[in-house]
Order: sequence, then C-alpha cells, then structure tokens
Amino acid sequence: MSNELRIAVLGVGMMGADHVARITNKIAGARVAVVNDFFAEKAEELAATIPGCRAIADPFDAIADPEVDAVLLATPGPTHEKQLLACLEHGKPVLCEKPLTTEVETSLAVVKAEAALGKTLIQVGFMRRFDNEYAELKSLIDSGDIGRPLVVHCAHRNPTVPPNFDSAMIVKDSLVHEVDVTRFLLDEEITSVQIIKPSANASAPEGLQDPQIALFATESGRHVDAEVFVTTGVAYEVRTEVVAELGSAMIGLDVGLVRKSKPGTWGGTITPSFKERFGQAYDTEIQRWVNAVQAGAETGNYIDGPGAWDGYAAAAVCAAGVKSLETGERVAVEMVARSSI
Amino acid sequence: MSNELRIAVLGVGMMGADHVARITNKIAGARVAVVNDFFAEKAEELAATIPGCRAIADPFDAIADPEVDAVLLATPGPTHEKQLLACLEHGKPVLCEKPLTTEVETSLAVVKAEAALGKTLIQVGFMRRFDNEYAELKSLIDSGDIGRPLVVHCAHRNPTVPPNFDSAMIVKDSLVHEVDVTRFLLDEEITSVQIIKPSANASAPEGLQDPQIALFATESGRHVDAEVFVTTGVAYEVRTEVVAELGSAMIGLDVGLVRKSKPGTWGGTITPSFKERFGQAYDTEIQRWVNAVQAGAETGNYIDGPGAWDGYAAAAVCAAGVKSLETGERVAVEMVARSSI
Amino acid sequence: MSNELRIAVLGVGMMGADHVARITNKIAGARVAVVNDFFAEKAEELAATIPGCRAIADPFDAIADPEVDAVLLATPGPTHEKQLLACLEHGKPVLCEKPLTTEVETSLAVVKAEAALGKTLIQVGFMRRFDNEYAELKSLIDSGDIGRPLVVHCAHRNPTVPPNFDSAMIVKDSLVHEVDVTRFLLDEEITSVQIIKPSANASAPEGLQDPQIALFATESGRHVDAEVFVTTGVAYEVRTEVVAELGSAMIGLDVGLVRKSKPGTWGGTITPSFKERFGQAYDTEIQRWVNAVQAGAETGNYIDGPGAWDGYAAAAVCAAGVKSLETGERVAVEMVARSSI
Amino acid sequence: MSNELRIAVLGVGMMGADHVARITNKIAGARVAVVNDFFAEKAEELAATIPGCRAIADPFDAIADPEVDAVLLATPGPTHEKQLLACLEHGKPVLCEKPLTTEVETSLAVVKAEAALGKTLIQVGFMRRFDNEYAELKSLIDSGDIGRPLVVHCAHRNPTVPPNFDSAMIVKDSLVHEVDVTRFLLDEEITSVQIIKPSANASAPEGLQDPQIALFATESGRHVDAEVFVTTGVAYEVRTEVVAELGSAMIGLDVGLVRKSKPGTWGGTITPSFKERFGQAYDTEIQRWVNAVQAGAETGNYIDGPGAWDGYAAAAVCAAGVKSLETGERVAVEMVARSSI
Repeated sequence: MSNELRIAVLGVGMMGADHVARITNKIAGARVAVVNDFFAEKAEELAATIPGCRAIADPFDAIADPEVDAVLLATPGPTHEKQLLACLEHGKPVLCEKPLTTEVETSLAVVKAEAALGKTLIQVGFMRRFDNEYAELKSLIDSGDIGRPLVVHCAHRNPTVPPNFDSAMIVKDSLVHEVDVTRFLLDEEITSVQIIKPSANASAPEGLQDPQIALFATESGRHVDAEVFVTTGVAYEVRTEVVAELGSAMIGLDVGLVRKSKPGTWGGTITPSFKERFGQAYDTEIQRWVNAVQAGAETGNYIDGPGAWDGYAAAAVCAAGVKSLETGERVAVEMVARSSI
Repeated sequence: MSNELRIAVLGVGMMGADHVARITNKIAGARVAVVNDFFAEKAEELAATIPGCRAIADPFDAIADPEVDAVLLATPGPTHEKQLLACLEHGKPVLCEKPLTTEVETSLAVVKAEAALGKTLIQVGFMRRFDNEYAELKSLIDSGDIGRPLVVHCAHRNPTVPPNFDSAMIVKDSLVHEVDVTRFLLDEEITSVQIIKPSANASAPEGLQDPQIALFATESGRHVDAEVFVTTGVAYEVRTEVVAELGSAMIGLDVGLVRKSKPGTWGGTITPSFKERFGQAYDTEIQRWVNAVQAGAETGNYIDGPGAWDGYAAAAVCAAGVKSLETGERVAVEMVARSSI
Repeated sequence: MSNELRIAVLGVGMMGADHVARITNKIAGARVAVVNDFFAEKAEELAATIPGCRAIADPFDAIADPEVDAVLLATPGPTHEKQLLACLEHGKPVLCEKPLTTEVETSLAVVKAEAALGKTLIQVGFMRRFDNEYAELKSLIDSGDIGRPLVVHCAHRNPTVPPNFDSAMIVKDSLVHEVDVTRFLLDEEITSVQIIKPSANASAPEGLQDPQIALFATESGRHVDAEVFVTTGVAYEVRTEVVAELGSAMIGLDVGLVRKSKPGTWGGTITPSFKERFGQAYDTEIQRWVNAVQAGAETGNYIDGPGAWDGYAAAAVCAAGVKSLETGERVAVEMVARSSI
Repeated sequence: MSNELRIAVLGVGMMGADHVARITNKIAGARVAVVNDFFAEKAEELAATIPGCRAIADPFDAIADPEVDAVLLATPGPTHEKQLLACLEHGKPVLCEKPLTTEVETSLAVVKAEAALGKTLIQVGFMRRFDNEYAELKSLIDSGDIGRPLVVHCAHRNPTVPPNFDSAMIVKDSLVHEVDVTRFLLDEEITSVQIIKPSANASAPEGLQDPQIALFATESGRHVDAEVFVTTGVAYEVRTEVVAELGSAMIGLDVGLVRKSKPGTWGGTITPSFKERFGQAYDTEIQRWVNAVQAGAETGNYIDGPGAWDGYAAAAVCAAGVKSLETGERVAVEMVARSSI
C-alpha cells in the first residue's frame, strides 16, 4: 500500500552498517533493499537480517538494479568517482558519504557530469548541516538578529584516531567538516587556507602534526580559525562561535544532558564520539533525503542538503590545506567559477 | 515486502494529528491505516492526505477492523475506558494517551481486565520516560553513581493554559507528569499528597489556584516537591533535581541550543511548549512502541514503557491531590496492592 | 593622620580569628585594637601578632574600654545577650555574629533595649545579604523586572557537620540563613513553618534528621521551601530560586571559576565550605559596617545591614521550626508586632 | 599606632581617581597621602576630599617627598619613563599602570636602571593576573592536572572605544593584555606575532581595523590566537581557553551572577566595562602590592606581580604587532636576552 523507497547501501563497514540499521529502524518511507560490500560475505550476512533485503556482489549491478530506487554510498573514497558516475548514468539519486571524490579534478568531473544531466541527483553527507545546533545557529544568522558575521572560531577535538591517521588526513577527514560548516554558515567560498603547526601533543603518534590550526579567508574577507586536535584523550568535542556585527553566538558548549554534583565538583559528560554527538544529525539527514528523493520526480531535484558542488568546494579547500600543511604558508584555493559549470 | 504495522489513530485533534504526522513521516515499520474522530469529516479529510489510509466513523469499528494491527488512543479521557476494554477484547495492542481513564475505579477495572487476559497490551503515554534527559537521569540513578535518592525537586511551568483550565486540572493534567516522573525515578509508589496553595499569580484567570506546590511522600519515606505553575508567561520549563546520598543530579536546566550574546546580556531561548520540549520523546516513544508491538506476538508483551498499572497509580495519586487541593491537608493515596491484581 | 576605627573582637575561635585577619589585612579604616576570648592565652597569642593590639581578659572590660570604638561579637551564642546589653549601655556599635541571642525572649529584650536608646547600634551577621549574588538577586527583584515573587526555592547543602550537630541545630544554625534570605528577598515576615522529615541519609550520624525540608508561609501568602542537607559529602552548595509573576531568577548555580574538560567529562569545582563561598560577603559586610560606624555619629544609625529586629525575627521563626521538627505539623510563628516596640 | 603606607597617586584621571577611592575605602594598611595631576586643580579638589591628603603640583616633587612611601603611576604613558627613573632614583616602590613606557628602548632602559639598583621596585599594572578566574586557571595549569598547554584561544571584546582609538591602539592598549596573559599562563616568551585583518565591522569608525586577529608563537612552539574586537556594541567580554595535553580549561564564560528566565529566553547579564569585570582584580592587585611594599625593606623585593621585565616584553611584542598590522605578515619579536640584563 505504501511506497517505500528501496535503497541500496554500498559499503557496509561501520558507517554503512549504521545507515542500514538507521533506515531499517528509524526512517519512515524507506527500506534497505540491497546491500553491497567489497567483502561479499559481510553484505550477505547483513542482508539475511533485514526483511526483504538482498546482497548484490557488484556495486555497479546494485546501482543498476531495477528494484533499487536510490543509493547510499558508504564505500571508501577512492571508489566514489566511478560509483557516482554510474548513479548519474542510471538516474539514481545518491547520498554520498564524504568525500565526494578523493581529488579535486574528479570532484569537478562529477559536478560537470551531474550538471549535464539537468537533474540534481547527488547529495553529499556533510551531516552537521542537519544537527539541531548547527541548524539553529544558521537560522539565527539568517534571521539577521546578530548581524553580519565577521569572524568564526571552530574547535574540533577527537579523543583518538586510528593508527594509520596521518597529518594530511587531519585536513581531509577532520578539517573538511569545518570547511563545510564555514561555507554553510557564511554562504560564500573560502579563498585561502593556512595551516599552523604548533608544538605537537607528546602523546600523538610519532610524526602526526596534532593539533593543527587552520585559518580560512573568505571571498568577502571574513576570518575563520579552526583548531583541529584529534588525540586529546578527552572526548568528541565540536564547537563553533560566530562573532557578528550585532552580537555573537556559540554552539557546542553545553554538552551532556544531566548536570551532576559529586564530591568537590559539578559537571556533565561529553559525547565519546561523533556517533553520539551527531546521531540526531544523521537521522535527520537520511529522513530528509528520503523525503526529497520521494518528491524528486516532480521537480528533478532529489536532494535536500549539500550537493556535488559543495563536495567539490570542500575538496578544493582541503587540497590547499594539504599544500599549506607542507609549507606553513597561506595557500590560495583554486576553484573554477560556479557559473562556468 | 516489509510488514508495516497498521495503526488506527483514534482522535485526531492536536495530539492525535501530531501522531498521525509522526507515524507517517518519521516512524519506521508502521503506517496509519485508519483514522477516526468524533467529527467524522475531520478524520476523512486527514485520511485523504495519507496514502493507504481510511477513515472509520465508529471508534469500535476501527478497533475491531481486521486490517488494524494496533491502536493509538488520542480521544478525550472520558471515552478511554470503553475503548481500552474494546482493544483488550479484540487483542489489539494500544498506546493510550494519558489519562488511562478519568476515575480511579475505572482505571483499576482496566488494569484487572488486562491482567485477566494474560497479555500486556496497554501502554500509557507518559512520554517523559522517553525524553533523553529523563532517560539519562534514570540511568544515572540506576548506575548507583549518586547513591540512593532522598529528595526530588520538580518544577513544571507552562506559559499559558486554555481558558477552561481549572485548579483540579493543574493536578490531573500537569502534576500527573510529576507523579509519573517520581514513580519512574524512584521505583516506588507515592503514599501521600499535599497541595500547598500560595498567593496566586495576579494574571492567572479568576479562581485558578496557580501556582500550586505538591508534596509527595513515598513508600520508603522519600520526599518530593513539585512546583506547578501554568500561567508564567515565560515558556515551557520542566526541571527535575534528584538529591541522593552520594551526590545530586539535575536535568532541564540548559535549555536552548545556541548561546547568544547581545548588548548587555547572554543567554538562550526556552522551548515555547511541550511539543518542542518533548518532540524527541514522542518520536522515541512511538518508535519503541511500534517495535515492541512487532515483537509482541512472541512474548505476549506488546509494550515498551509505562503500562496500565502506571496509569492507575497516577490516577490514584491525582485523586488524592484533588482532595488535598480542597483541604490543604495531606491526603493518603488509596490504592490496591499490586499483588492483589 | 587617619582615624582608624578601633575594634574589639570578642571571641577569637575560627570565626573571630577570621575576622581579626580580615580587619587587619583587607579592611580600610579600621584595625583590631583589642581581642578577647574565654581562653585568655589564645587572645594574648593573637594580640601579639597584630601591631597595636591588646588582649583584655574580661569581655565587659573590652566593651567598656575607652580606646575601643566598636565591638565585633564572635563569642558563643549563650553569652550574646549580656554582651549586647553591655554594648548598648556603653553606646558601642556592635556587629553580632548570629544568633542575636539563643532565645526568642532574650532577643526581644535586646530589641527593646536598643529601641529605648534611640540609636541603632546592633547589626546582626547575616552575611548572605552582602554576597554579590544575593545582592544582585535582591536588586533584580526590587527593579520589578521579574514582577512580584510568588514562590522561593532554597537549597542549603554542607558536606559535613561537626560530631555534636543535632537535628535542632540544622534549624537554628543552617536553616536560619534561609529564614533571613526569605525575609530579605520578600521584605515581609514568615508566619508559619513546617519541617518535613524525609527518610534520612544513611551516612548521617545516628539520630540526625538529615535532610530536612522546611516550608515557610509569609504574611502575604507566599510559599518558600528550603532543603537543608548537611551531610551530603559533596561540597558547600547554596542555591536560591525566586519564581515571580513576570519571570524567575536563580543564583548559586554556576559554581567555580574555571570550566574544565577532562576525559569524558566537563565541569567545575564547588566551594568546599562557607568560608570560600561567602568570603567576599564577609569582606563586604565588615567594610560596610566599618564605614557605617564611622558615619554613625552624625545620624545615630551605626549599621548597614540587618539589625536586632532581624535577629529577633529569625529567632522566632527558628523556634517555630524546632517545634515543627518534633511534631511534623505546621507551626505558627509567634512574634510581637514591630510597631509595638 | 599602625604604620599605614603613604602613597602618592600620580595622575588622577578615571583610572587614578579609581585607585584613590580604592585605597581610601577598601585597602588595608595604606592611605593616599599625596595626589598629583597635570591639571593641578583636579588634584587639589580630590585631595580636599581625602583625610590627610595633600596635592603636590610637580610629579617629581611628589615622588621625592619624604612623606611618600610609595608611588602609584596613573599618568599618561609618555611620562612614565622619567617618572619611573625618578622613583628608582629615590628608592620609591612604584606600581605603574601599563604601559611601562611607550617605546621598547625606553622600557629596556628602565629595566636596566632597576637591575642596576639591586632592588625590585617596579610593578606593572597587568591586573588580570590578580583576577580570581585567571589566577585559578594559572593554578590549574601549574598543578599539572590538564598537562602541558599546547594552544591558547583568547577573545577580548569591548562594546565601544573612545573616538580617537586607532588600529595600532588596538594592539598596544587591548591586545597587550592578551600578551601578558599568554606570558603569564605559559611562562615563556612570545617569539613572533601576526595580525590578521578580517573584513571590518561596518559600525567601527572609518579607518579602524576592527576586529583584529593576533597569532602568537612562543619559544617552545606553542600557538596562541587572540580575537580583539573593540566595537562590538555588546559588553565587555574577556575569555581565555587553554588546550593542553590532558584536557582543556576555559574562563570568562559564565558571566553574570543571576540566571534569569523571561518570556522565551533565559540568561544573564555581561559586565559593561573592564571596571566591573576586573574590579576584584584591581582590589587584589593593590592590596597585595601594599603588603609587598610593607614587607620589601627586609627583602629588597617590593613587588608581588609582574615587574619591569614583563612591561618590556609586552612592549616588544606589541611593537612587532604594530609592524605586522601594516604588512599582515608574521613579525619576529626582537628582545634582548633576559640573562643579559
């Protein structure tokens, strides 16, 4: 009777498996119809636990499958380009976990391929835009209540990172969220990036430049600084303050739900990882994407959130960031004009 | 392919209509199959907007309908008793918005009727138990971290109430939530109630005793005080503090998501009504109920939350409260022993 | 060149010795000229450390001493009556640590003796009125910004109490501060008191009724509840919330100066005892008293703070509280009319 | 009987007059014996209100006066050098409001002149070190509890500035406090400064670069960023966060003493200016300085706080800052080695 959106989830590692559970248990109007993974057995085992779900061994078969209405891409970044192009080819709406692709050029190629189609099929998984706090901050800015933002301060702290995490990944995997937050909140492009490398955390892995301080300048000359510190040992902390002409506003400060007093101290707990911190954001992101895809046939717009261009812009800024990481100097961001697409 | 739970929503006033939208747009594994309302047209108009949804004019027909798997009762309190008994008769799981019924005796009758069935079909809509803050507070207590609770302070403030709201409704409609919160957090029954009537708010409607201070004693002698103030003009504020033997804990304090600085002041916003404050709680309540109903056939337990007994206990405490409202004296709560059911 | 006020400090136990150090090191326009203690040696040892300070063995000699301009009474409560009357007799301004006297009748006698003099010489050491937070709360109320207060919630928590502390002392030594805070904030008398005795803290000394919940009604029918809990093991916590017709306001919440994040948690520290919590209040109290005494010759008013009447009223309310502690019932406060003095 | 320190206050504009009032009304063990001002009448009028206080027309006469024990310098910066040297010449302890002198070279000359004396006579008025919040933050760092600091974030916001305030004054008058805070908290020198100039506040006076973002690197490679924004229109806000290897800590966040709820919002007030924010710090600074001067004869050290070297270091960092303000580039701080003095 109802028309549930049939989703193929490609890549069912931690992130993809989370999305499968989310769609199955929390999202209205959609179900996971197909799962796929490089490790076929993993997909098969997972499929067996979901009513009406099949495993398909080849991701391109999954994309092409006539009983798949939309695709959720949680595969490793290097595979994104071809999978996205396949989605475009088959006219399948796709929610692509960041990054769009792993190089600026291929991201641009995807942007152009989608533009050529005349339909908006690609959404990029910058989930923070769906977080209640970021959404309310954006809405406060848009209301004009605090005036024009001039400066933004960001902090992004992880307790730990996996063993293979290197300095460039701090830029591409962590800082990239601050890149998108900046573009989201200020509604303009970032024009230069500088990475400052303070004395490193003694307990960071050998050779990891952590913390890093990123400085962004934007088209209209606004300033953003972002501390990214991924081996704090503390918890998952994300904070953003916008300093504007008529006031300022901050999110990410009051963490934890219960205020507790114990001998000598008071306080609360901090979310241990991005999963707890952004669980609500992921739920909202997927539900709104499902709704947008359902409504897309009428409008040609199948997304409700950041699109391919936002993925390309993030890639371009991060590429400049990686260059600055080497030199310590300010690096101009190289991007084509959006109007040229 | 999937087996969506087919729900009949009885009563589609503000609360019921909210639940219809919630189930349709946010809840996985369920859909609204039937709507019913005393005003048949209202139900018909709503049904027309929901794919695969019918209006049924008679609530008992809706309950009995073979294509209805479960019932959500959002009808006026006085109709609950018969509708609940009909649900029991047809073996239909039912989520009943508070109150269970409007009198202690009929509540007890419902409890007994369900007990006689040998299946747990009735869940009562005390949504606060599903609020993330209350859930975390309960979990903190259960962890033993702050020791045995001795005293609980509650505040329950509404900006306004409808014109017909009278002093007894403050007890039965507002304080009832503090009754359930107390029973939930302390895991024992309330044995006496006293309502203190301070000098009333000058802008409260003529004759409305507002604010009211309720004092509860519990079986093991713990003390709870609850300020209920429903014409504050401020916002919807709900706060609970548990003072225990090894520490204390409070929820409901840090309201609002954004911390804003403006000339001379800093602060945040407060949720205007229970809908914003407890939106997440309603979503979680319904999703968990749907999941429980889906799983119920195996276990005979179709609920995941407060049951009929909790509705009866709340009714008994509120009845004592209404009596105390008249006399100002402490009134013992009259309840049958749970073991006698 | 300057005219420093020569103060005699009577009683140099913990509190008195603190005041001696305060006057010597922090207070402008005054010095400790005389110290006295039941243990004469203690006073002599202390005097030897203060330039220009003598020990006088008899408290009445100290009061009468021509080179003493004013008296600070930090002796045990039972000695206050006679020492206060001696101060009045010699026309010496006196700051008397609470209680004024230990019985309602003797307090009234002191009030009358002072009234007969036609000068205001006695200030009582309810230091909270000088705490920046309480002062700002009072000033907010007086501004009319939150409208007329209807309800006040107080919490008063000590980590521990001395071994001899009994249930009545919780009323007379701890709750007495909430009595004065209530009278200060609401500017009217308390007319009845009820003490509720919840299930006691398992780690409180045998026989100590702790916590206690006090309920006050005031002349115009306002309601105050005060939780007093003196064996929390946590820290020294004092909180007051005023719920008024146009808003509410709370103090005592944000304790500690530094907000710290450590693995898994964030928070601050709480002051360990009243000394840290009210250190600023004592400083301000003494400095303003010194200034008032210096200015008193012109006006006949030698105080800047609560006076003998406030000490009497507190005694009357606490006497009712002690009676209620026995019966659990509401007890009317017995006081003479102020106009009768 | 007591030996009150006789202080000459030079310069009785807003700051100096404040200090005169402070010493007279709040500080134990000292009195204002002499006042001096470029506008002699102003000094005379003020002197007439203070018992035992004279006006002296020539600042050098005031310094030399045998009945002056110590000097408080609140004169304009350009006069400091000669006045400080005069204090040294007469062996008079001096508390010098910032700046030490207005040029790096003259500051160094003062440092050397004092060093040649073999006595420590000069304290510089960086009052933040005496603020309870900064003091507790420093003490937390020193305790080792949060480990080695790696990054410091500062914000310094004024609602308005006087009409003549120019971009370099933002560095020399405002940022200078963050310079001292950095050196105080991290216990090492700043080696380079970069000033970033974001798009300016539209309501800042024509030509004023406001806000400014300053980046400091320190000897051991730690990073500090400081937002200085002096035309916010909001209030006086000062915040510092230290991000360290085992945790982080922030001060300046919870401003205001009362937490107020009003229709739709909750929050508190922010101090309107540095006077309210740092009133306690000034009181503590002066009292501790008075005590140190009293004790100095024994040790040859007449200060308890930042000294001439701290004034010189601040001047050197600000000079680099002013240079960077012009170029936007990182500028190395030029300082002699402390060991060379």
